[in-house]
Amino acid sequence: MTSPTPDPSDLTLAEKASLTSGSATWYSTGAGDIPRLMLTDGPHGLRRQQEGGDNLGIGDSVPATCFPPAVGLGSSWNVDLARRIGEALGREAREQGVHVLLGPGMNIKRSPLGGRNFEYVSEDPHITGRIAAALVRGIQSRGVAATPKHFAVNNQETDRMRVSADVDERTLREIYLPAFEHVVTEARPWALMSSYNRINGVFASEDHSLQTELLRGEWGFDGVVMSDWGAVNDRVAAVSSGLDLEMPPSDTDAEIVAAVESGTLDEAVLDTVVERLRLLAARTTDPALATDPVDIDAHHRLAADAAAEAMVLLRNEGGLLPLDAAAGERIAVIGEFARTPRYQGGGSSRVVPTRLSTALEEIRSVAPAASVEFAAGFSLETEGSDAGTLAAEALATEALAAEAVAVAARADRVLLFLGLPDGYESEGFDRETLALPADQLALLTRVAALNAPVVVILSNGATVEVADWANSVEAILETWLLGQGGGLATAEVLFGLVSPGGRLTETIPLRLADTPSYLGFPGRDGHVVYGEGVYVGYRHYNTLNTPVAYEFGFGLTYTTFEYTDLSLVPGETANSWRISVTVQNTGDRDGAEVVQAYVGVTESAPTRPAQELRGFAKLHLAAGESGTAVINLDARDFATWDAGQHRWRVDAGVFTVQVGSSSRHIRLTQAVEVSGDGWIPELSEQSTVGEWFAHPVGGQLLQSVRDRMEAFAAGGAPELLKMVEQVPIIKLTSWKMGLTLERVREMVAYVAAERSQE
Amino acid sequence: MTSPTPDPSDLTLAEKASLTSGSATWYSTGAGDIPRLMLTDGPHGLRRQQEGGDNLGIGDSVPATCFPPAVGLGSSWNVDLARRIGEALGREAREQGVHVLLGPGMNIKRSPLGGRNFEYVSEDPHITGRIAAALVRGIQSRGVAATPKHFAVNNQETDRMRVSADVDERTLREIYLPAFEHVVTEARPWALMSSYNRINGVFASEDHSLQTELLRGEWGFDGVVMSDWGAVNDRVAAVSSGLDLEMPPSDTDAEIVAAVESGTLDEAVLDTVVERLRLLAARTTDPALATDPVDIDAHHRLAADAAAEAMVLLRNEGGLLPLDAAAGERIAVIGEFARTPRYQGGGSSRVVPTRLSTALEEIRSVAPAASVEFAAGFSLETEGSDAGTLAAEALATEALAAEAVAVAARADRVLLFLGLPDGYESEGFDRETLALPADQLALLTRVAALNAPVVVILSNGATVEVADWANSVEAILETWLLGQGGGLATAEVLFGLVSPGGRLTETIPLRLADTPSYLGFPGRDGHVVYGEGVYVGYRHYNTLNTPVAYEFGFGLTYTTFEYTDLSLVPGETANSWRISVTVQNTGDRDGAEVVQAYVGVTESAPTRPAQELRGFAKLHLAAGESGTAVINLDARDFATWDAGQHRWRVDAGVFTVQVGSSSRHIRLTQAVEVSGDGWIPELSEQSTVGEWFAHPVGGQLLQSVRDRMEAFAAGGAPELLKMVEQVPIIKLTSWKMGLTLERVREMVAYVAAERSQE
Repeated sequence: MTSPTPDPSDLTLAEKASLTSGSATWYSTGAGDIPRLMLTDGPHGLRRQQEGGDNLGIGDSVPATCFPPAVGLGSSWNVDLARRIGEALGREAREQGVHVLLGPGMNIKRSPLGGRNFEYVSEDPHITGRIAAALVRGIQSRGVAATPKHFAVNNQETDRMRVSADVDERTLREIYLPAFEHVVTEARPWALMSSYNRINGVFASEDHSLQTELLRGEWGFDGVVMSDWGAVNDRVAAVSSGLDLEMPPSDTDAEIVAAVESGTLDEAVLDTVVERLRLLAARTTDPALATDPVDIDAHHRLAADAAAEAMVLLRNEGGLLPLDAAAGERIAVIGEFARTPRYQGGGSSRVVPTRLSTALEEIRSVAPAASVEFAAGFSLETEGSDAGTLAAEALATEALAAEAVAVAARADRVLLFLGLPDGYESEGFDRETLALPADQLALLTRVAALNAPVVVILSNGATVEVADWANSVEAILETWLLGQGGGLATAEVLFGLVSPGGRLTETIPLRLADTPSYLGFPGRDGHVVYGEGVYVGYRHYNTLNTPVAYEFGFGLTYTTFEYTDLSLVPGETANSWRISVTVQNTGDRDGAEVVQAYVGVTESAPTRPAQELRGFAKLHLAAGESGTAVINLDARDFATWDAGQHRWRVDAGVFTVQVGSSSRHIRLTQAVEVSGDGWIPELSEQSTVGEWFAHPVGGQLLQSVRDRMEAFAAGGAPELLKMVEQVPIIKLTSWKMGLTLERVREMVAYVAAERSQE
Repeated sequence: MTSPTPDPSDLTLAEKASLTSGSATWYSTGAGDIPRLMLTDGPHGLRRQQEGGDNLGIGDSVPATCFPPAVGLGSSWNVDLARRIGEALGREAREQGVHVLLGPGMNIKRSPLGGRNFEYVSEDPHITGRIAAALVRGIQSRGVAATPKHFAVNNQETDRMRVSADVDERTLREIYLPAFEHVVTEARPWALMSSYNRINGVFASEDHSLQTELLRGEWGFDGVVMSDWGAVNDRVAAVSSGLDLEMPPSDTDAEIVAAVESGTLDEAVLDTVVERLRLLAARTTDPALATDPVDIDAHHRLAADAAAEAMVLLRNEGGLLPLDAAAGERIAVIGEFARTPRYQGGGSSRVVPTRLSTALEEIRSVAPAASVEFAAGFSLETEGSDAGTLAAEALATEALAAEAVAVAARADRVLLFLGLPDGYESEGFDRETLALPADQLALLTRVAALNAPVVVILSNGATVEVADWANSVEAILETWLLGQGGGLATAEVLFGLVSPGGRLTETIPLRLADTPSYLGFPGRDGHVVYGEGVYVGYRHYNTLNTPVAYEFGFGLTYTTFEYTDLSLVPGETANSWRISVTVQNTGDRDGAEVVQAYVGVTESAPTRPAQELRGFAKLHLAAGESGTAVINLDARDFATWDAGQHRWRVDAGVFTVQVGSSSRHIRLTQAVEVSGDGWIPELSEQSTVGEWFAHPVGGQLLQSVRDRMEAFAAGGAPELLKMVEQVPIIKLTSWKMGLTLERVREMVAYVAAERSQE
């Protein structure tokens, strides 16, 4: 027990206890010199509750700019853009008196079925960490706390408030934690939100190893950890383990007071919480930080620019896109989404936008010379369930489809807007299929059978299956969810005012059963076993060479890029490199290229992913222009987590640096020789004979044993050496081979002594 | 602490301690009235050390009948055969003064790479349990203790003495433990051997939950648990956790004495060990048990019969097999294995056979009218490593191949004997590839290019890849490892004196990368994560519909079988059925059919394997003969392990009983409606709203809440109900919906009270 730090504010125990919980749904508690702070949802836009609105404020918040949700923003691979959007969010928050913004969301997309995937960036931790860090920097630059969430391993909605995510240590370190690690250590968020779920049996909000040892100890986090809304189960356990703030309030402050009085909770823990809340208040009320005024028009334009950067052009046969606005073509715009955009997801992140552009209007505006005819094609209303309603709906569905087919039949070009209606994906539940709705697929089949070339424009918060129909249309533009400027951006991209800027941050598999977590998602009986381990997303597909529809990192543009002059210059620290590569826009349109750097390994039996994204750079290049992408690698980019030694380990060996325009379209590669981290392992009685042989000190001690074994093996039993090398040295002592227990213990001590002198 | 049971034999503490360890490599310790017992390796034949032989006795044991190792015996799917071989093993052991036979081996083949797979039965626990139980019954019928091994989760050789097999509870219960459970509860072995490895971090030999709670508590084991040779790391921890006998001795008895004297080990634990050893001695020295004399000739014939039952005919294009012994054909017998059979595996199970038949001699004997010409084709010697040796070997290899091609070129039929030489698989290390040796594959290509039809006869202890070359030959006979009678049986099968009787107990995949553990075998850093969970072997391939070379349960015969009259009659206990099906041999040769019964489930998102083997029956039917296969199912055959409630759970629903000749060749099916186990779950604050709704008592309490929610959902928010049903009821109390914490606690108490009155 450490003695309690004196609390200068002379707060009473009851006051301190009250500070560890909110005072209302969206407010922390104020006491003494610590002000009450306002917290607001807002990963991609502010959801500040209306005064007197409903309790959770959903659907009834103050209008705010709705930027592309993380699925869209992530696809932009544009860190600078993310920072600018963060600044805009900070500006709007500050203007509304919000101190803490509850975002960014940054969990890993373990399965494409995850109901909340649209709030997350990627199946990959590197790109997730970079986008989230930029958002945090932007938000906090305006004196508003960012709150990265949900810490941690919250990768599904099914049973999310109880399920134990059972994950091995290495997978945690290599997949589910690195994005948080990057954000915490590089962008220094002032707050963090823990998740609802359990991790290996322990609620995240009660996990001392996570919230205190790792987060504050290893990573140096100095902010406030708050619970997800309603995540706390045991108030005292949560506070003891490092949770500072329970949200919303639960009227159980007395439990904290009682725990301190009974001695089960050290009051010093509360004093630390008070200090953290005081620091948060100071940070979020700092008058020195810029408070530039909000320009709603500029924010709308920023949202539209971001949307164009986010769209991923998956297919463009014969260069159908961009369309020619001046050609005076008959253009059929089909699909309710063109008129009623799906531009954000359901749940706590839903924003009331300041305005909302629709693709239909913007197409008419961008291409006034075109003859645009619209048909809804399908309805977004949810189906009824009684027989009479179903029959009526079937008639209505057919009428809508028939009208759309007629419109498409008389067009030169068909723009077919398909996607997932709101009811198909949301916070709160996971999907069960990757398919588009059946009525939309039926319409697609009929429209594709006509003569006019078809562009499918997809609106969906997470991956949908496209393989069955992709070849029946000329172009596919995956727009994800684009926020309030999406309609404008879509029109601009379709008509070539701007080139689509996005690349896939999640693999589009051929079928759901190909996904690595297929047999283990979403678990059952209160457990979800993360059996695929580190092989999430492209780490799975690309290690196994599984065919996919579109690979991680993929995306077309309206131009072409050439890669030359790959160079790797050693950096200042061991095993670090500065990669540079020249990229030229060799087409006749401006465009953006996302240069991706992967570190690859070649192993006969895989012990790690065949390639992992370790850096990227987005270059915007005018037609003919050249640029240089610079990407830095350091030792950590070659490291793997050693679950035996509980540390990052860099093995010596040859790695391949792969620079490409997608994970499977590698343009240039270079082998690099990595020296390893020089770690000299401890040796113990349980270390194997092979480990002793390989050890600089231990190997010398056993040289004569080794010589004898090698001679024996060379004499006709090569497998013997292989077998014995795997045996813990202690076992040899019972084999009557002259190696006694005493001798082994002497050797262990000798190696330890030599090691400590290094 | 329980007070020590008085020990009637008045052994001293030192004597008791000495009893918990052996007195020599192959002997237990005797003290007081407890005799010293002799233990001997012997899963498929006795390896009794020669007096004065080398310490481990490998390669220098008393000759004994070498029956087919488990890989072969398992492929027979013949429980009666396994019992008769067990009896023979018991007879030979008894005659040699052996009290305890160290077998059968019965771990699950998690990966085809497992170095010791040849000592194990299958990738499936059902067939493993049945074959092993029959062996135990047979061995023990002669007053010799069987020792099923290695308990548990010892599925690889890599790092086997230290590695932690990290397996979730459900996978343990459904895949890695059920075969042991069956053997222990049904065949009552008198001894059991624990494994080297750790399980979820705990050494098997120190695992109280495994060795005591599960094995003795749940399963009622009353025998002696001994360590694998050299597996004990902490003597006191091992004894405390339920290990009775450390083998071989380690000279650390003093640690046991000291632990008792210091109070860390209860002497009663030692007294219990003494009782168990006394019981084992009584059982293995019982003069009342039959000691019929050993008939070496009869045992050799039994070994040959077993070998014929074990062989799996994978391919037989145009009915090439059986060959006609009277046709006077020119038969080329190619391959060193025809002359130098590979008939057992390397390591502790290696037996010195009483005699050894070779296919080459037996073919000449069975088909005297044929003109048989032999060529070795390749050498089984291990390659050298220096350049000179390599060059000389390349010349020798070419000479052998050229000779073989010449012999094959002038033959009417080619019998090509391929397989894995001894150095390719053994106890002590795992394989890294499923491929046959390169020189054999090259020879195969050349021989297959000739005119004569080719039969490939494979000798290998575990699966090899065949997909690349299977279509280039007319027939493939997978003989696994067949023991000393294999040569005779092979000749008899090739010439149709008997029909091949085996079926695959392990899937032959198209390629190694298709295997479910590919990315997780053999682990690293001291851990192997069993990430594929319950989806081992066909449970993986058949749930995902992955193409394979030959599926689990597959095997051809020289005749055909028709299935009719499937009937399921309810049994006496709930959810039990007696399956019967009529099978007719509709061909013109005698043959054996293995009727397999699988329980199938259909789920849109798999939460359990699509089908699981739950019974089988082998029928030997003369040409034209009909027989009835009877297979019983009980509730457990429909159960799944609930890792949340830690119990077997039978869900109500419709299952499919699939009766077929392989896992993918289902002949007849019948749906059965299972009533479920009637379990009424407890409800707690953490139970979800959906669980409350579904509960017979809880649902009533919440009826009004449910009505309101359903009305709300019907009004246009169907996903709301889906979301709320997943929320633990306790969370609703902070949602200000009128449900207070007090009310929830009242309801929990009410449900518990109602439940206890059931």
